[in-house]
Amino acid sequence: MKVKKTQPRANWKNRLHEIIYEADTPMGKWFDLALIALILLSVVLIMLESVKEIDAKYHDTLLTLEWVVTIFFSVEYIARIVSIKKPSKYIFSFYGIIDFISTIPLYLSYIFAGSQVLLAFRVFRMLRIFRILKLVQFIGEASQLKKALRASRTKIAVFIYVVLILSVIMGTVMYLIEGDEAGFTSIPRSIYWTIVTLTTVGYGDIAPQTNLGQFIATAIMILGYGIIAVPTGIVTVEFSKQSKDGDETAKVQDQYEDVHLNTQSCPYCSAEKHRDNAKHCYNCGNLLNE
Amino acid sequence: MKVKKTQPRANWKNRLHEIIYEADTPMGKWFDLALIALILLSVVLIMLESVKEIDAKYHDTLLTLEWVVTIFFSVEYIARIVSIKKPSKYIFSFYGIIDFISTIPLYLSYIFAGSQVLLAFRVFRMLRIFRILKLVQFIGEASQLKKALRASRTKIAVFIYVVLILSVIMGTVMYLIEGDEAGFTSIPRSIYWTIVTLTTVGYGDIAPQTNLGQFIATAIMILGYGIIAVPTGIVTVEFSKQSKDGDETAKVQDQYEDVHLNTQSCPYCSAEKHRDNAKHCYNCGNLLNE
Amino acid sequence: MKVKKTQPRANWKNRLHEIIYEADTPMGKWFDLALIALILLSVVLIMLESVKEIDAKYHDTLLTLEWVVTIFFSVEYIARIVSIKKPSKYIFSFYGIIDFISTIPLYLSYIFAGSQVLLAFRVFRMLRIFRILKLVQFIGEASQLKKALRASRTKIAVFIYVVLILSVIMGTVMYLIEGDEAGFTSIPRSIYWTIVTLTTVGYGDIAPQTNLGQFIATAIMILGYGIIAVPTGIVTVEFSKQSKDGDETAKVQDQYEDVHLNTQSCPYCSAEKHRDNAKHCYNCGNLLNE
Amino acid sequence: MKVKKTQPRANWKNRLHEIIYEADTPMGKWFDLALIALILLSVVLIMLESVKEIDAKYHDTLLTLEWVVTIFFSVEYIARIVSIKKPSKYIFSFYGIIDFISTIPLYLSYIFAGSQVLLAFRVFRMLRIFRILKLVQFIGEASQLKKALRASRTKIAVFIYVVLILSVIMGTVMYLIEGDEAGFTSIPRSIYWTIVTLTTVGYGDIAPQTNLGQFIATAIMILGYGIIAVPTGIVTVEFSKQSKDGDETAKVQDQYEDVHLNTQSCPYCSAEKHRDNAKHCYNCGNLLNE
Repeated sequence: MKVKKTQPRANWKNRLHEIIYEADTPMGKWFDLALIALILLSVVLIMLESVKEIDAKYHDTLLTLEWVVTIFFSVEYIARIVSIKKPSKYIFSFYGIIDFISTIPLYLSYIFAGSQVLLAFRVFRMLRIFRILKLVQFIGEASQLKKALRASRTKIAVFIYVVLILSVIMGTVMYLIEGDEAGFTSIPRSIYWTIVTLTTVGYGDIAPQTNLGQFIATAIMILGYGIIAVPTGIVTVEFSKQSKDGDETAKVQDQYEDVHLNTQSCPYCSAEKHRDNAKHCYNCGNLLNE
Repeated sequence: MKVKKTQPRANWKNRLHEIIYEADTPMGKWFDLALIALILLSVVLIMLESVKEIDAKYHDTLLTLEWVVTIFFSVEYIARIVSIKKPSKYIFSFYGIIDFISTIPLYLSYIFAGSQVLLAFRVFRMLRIFRILKLVQFIGEASQLKKALRASRTKIAVFIYVVLILSVIMGTVMYLIEGDEAGFTSIPRSIYWTIVTLTTVGYGDIAPQTNLGQFIATAIMILGYGIIAVPTGIVTVEFSKQSKDGDETAKVQDQYEDVHLNTQSCPYCSAEKHRDNAKHCYNCGNLLNE
Repeated sequence: MKVKKTQPRANWKNRLHEIIYEADTPMGKWFDLALIALILLSVVLIMLESVKEIDAKYHDTLLTLEWVVTIFFSVEYIARIVSIKKPSKYIFSFYGIIDFISTIPLYLSYIFAGSQVLLAFRVFRMLRIFRILKLVQFIGEASQLKKALRASRTKIAVFIYVVLILSVIMGTVMYLIEGDEAGFTSIPRSIYWTIVTLTTVGYGDIAPQTNLGQFIATAIMILGYGIIAVPTGIVTVEFSKQSKDGDETAKVQDQYEDVHLNTQSCPYCSAEKHRDNAKHCYNCGNLLNE
Repeated sequence: MKVKKTQPRANWKNRLHEIIYEADTPMGKWFDLALIALILLSVVLIMLESVKEIDAKYHDTLLTLEWVVTIFFSVEYIARIVSIKKPSKYIFSFYGIIDFISTIPLYLSYIFAGSQVLLAFRVFRMLRIFRILKLVQFIGEASQLKKALRASRTKIAVFIYVVLILSVIMGTVMYLIEGDEAGFTSIPRSIYWTIVTLTTVGYGDIAPQTNLGQFIATAIMILGYGIIAVPTGIVTVEFSKQSKDGDETAKVQDQYEDVHLNTQSCPYCSAEKHRDNAKHCYNCGNLLNE
């Protein structure tokens, strides 16, 4: 963004796009930081509202602050639509939908009676932090984790599948052995108990009372204690591979040391990860902001 | 199954065998998918029946649906016997027995009073899914997991054995220290508590009250927290080996790329995993369905 | 034991020693199997006695069986002393002491009032199984596990040490925050709670009630959830090393394929693991049983 | 410390510095051992004081002992300040502050009413053990663990971050589904429950009652059971790397076998890990104690 020779599309929309969607100008960085702060504040507000004693005492203050936050997010939402070339690209994207359903509830609660429950949807704002964090370095680490988990997803699916079938059968057996008084009132509840036990959570709200029930419970626990080794083993082996691949990737990257990607996003098609010296979007060919 | 020159044994039994036991014709695939759907439906039915409120309200609907499912499974069971050359091979196989004991309970419940409890056996139908899944790709992953677990089974047996002896001794010690009022009413119950603690399940229905008891409980917890590392370590190392072997196996398989196995099963001896171009069963030499 | 040329010391003591201490004659093997069965029976007896309903009903049967078992173990104990050349070697060995304190309680309970509590010591008989299992193949696996755990013991000690210091400090903090009504009645009890939480056992008999307490509890849980990775990582790396060493050891062993160890034990000094063709004890030089 | 030719700065301050701050003279070692014993005694005292029954019975004995310990620590604190060349270096160091806030509370409790609560701060004395342990060999192991954890800290941060966002969203969902009677009285409390469940602690003081709630709880448990594999995988891979690096480092260290570090600390700037034959501090150039 250092070179600023030609500005054929340099109007306020472009500048807005640069601030909102990108993070390599000072303004863009400040905007992102402010947004994170506001999101965290708004989540704290939602939490405090739900605590009856606090809500009773500070209801008006909380509501006012909530309105401030909501209006800011509304303005931001409109700005995002206005500043992008193809608004539909944003509106129907994952984050566009998240933005919408976390902004609208407060308005709805005044229009429709009974839509109070939607207010909790504002908590989805937290997901927005994931988008903003593109400015943080550790995205690389996160993507390495994601790659390892994706590589082991079939194995983990097999594992969860076996665990679920085991839970259904064990749960049914326990339902037959234990009576209602121990809390095993139905098969679904018995399955719930089996998973609580197998995962070593162990609430204790339902617990076997008979000797046979306790014996089988013991077997389930040892099983659960043992099979936790399986996902751990899978993921560890995958991480280990990723880690070796990562070392090799690092060597390759050293060769391309001069290629830097920036946080720009194309104002036409929203594609990201452009090279620093890119003039045109690698995806749609339109001119990027400079 | 592409070549269809001679059909010396092509009668309705053969076609039935192809549909029921194999999965490489469109009909066979549809049959398997329908079977999975029906099994899942039937398991949901069993669960709903056990919930008293739902059973009270929809008892007749549930019973009707259950009869539909059971009749289908009965017909399928008979078809499996009829279409195979040696019925005893199927009837006394693992899945043959599962099929039988998950189909018969509804009939029995009308014949013998008190055989209601057998109805829960219908849940074993879930195990049938394992057989059907031969059409899914991730069987390879599952067998890799199974191989790793089998390779580490002696080590895991030693581990469980030590855990059990520890539990018996610790349980007896806790029985001596804690009284009846804390829930340690007998040695078996104390052992139950020890395993609940050692596996970090921790229901809390039985919990030590005395200082000494809590001190020993603390030691058991830290022990349990630490020794979970043992099965995890064993399985991880084994997975890591399997994963390397797998990479080498993949290379070998590339050389035999043209050998494809299909999902046929011999109508005489039920052997599976025939090569695509096989005409005779590799096991009993009889002609396969084409 | 195939060669039987000279029998200079062949008397009933030698034969007894062979049966009791060794496992490569048919008699020796049968003796060991009978012993394991008897130990398991006796442990079941101890458990059943502690269940009040069963004890009330079958007290006499249980006591008679217990006397049978105890008399057998007494005879065996005397036979062990008689058949060995240096009885003190056995009497003051680990298993000699275990044998004694698991045999004597029943006699004591008739001599001294109040020594009933010692009856539970009979459960230590279970430890004897470890000795007998020398005839089982998986001793090799067990020793591999033991080696790995020994190699990582310093690291695990550091880990437990840090966990304990953390627990004391966290426990004191929670004692200050939470009052008596939540169960945090003293610092030791708070530390107990902290370890219950950190190890993810979570009984729930003591649970934080205040907001601040729950917040800190949350931090302790995530900490505990995370640091379980540490012992697991340590042990896995150590297992992985052992496994590689084991592969190399296997190659070395192949070269010495003709050296076979047997289960004999020297009647003079109790040394074990003699070579199959050994005539003299490698430890004290005395003649072995042949 | 073997050579003792010139002693230009050899006065009682120097000797005190050697005893208190270093551990390679017999006196220094004894001092450290006495300090550890005293710290452990003092922590036991703090614990016993908090147990009401014990405090009621032995209040005077405990208080006397506490005064003895506190006076010793006060003297030691002053000695540390006096014997060092630049007292401010010590006073404002991490351990200087720990020493101060763990010594002062008993005095304060006599001066200010209501400062009793500060007495618990004495428990921070335990942290001092970490400093003293420089004489123990396993510091090397500890630093290896620390290095591995530091190398994986970004990955673990990403992991905890994702876990926290998940917990907030899941907690809010559970708050909407479950009512007050199940214990989900506010969003923060629901988040507390989510973390209790996700980390498999499972107190059971709050537990879902509705079917939908139990269904979601089941999903959270299986998630928690699965994602524990992530930190374990990260740390294991890192340990594995450290372990290989450690083997190579060991080879390098063999070459520098004659370089020995001692436990001296510079009386001017408190720098540590001087070579055995060092005369001047490598950091500030001043003469070391000899």
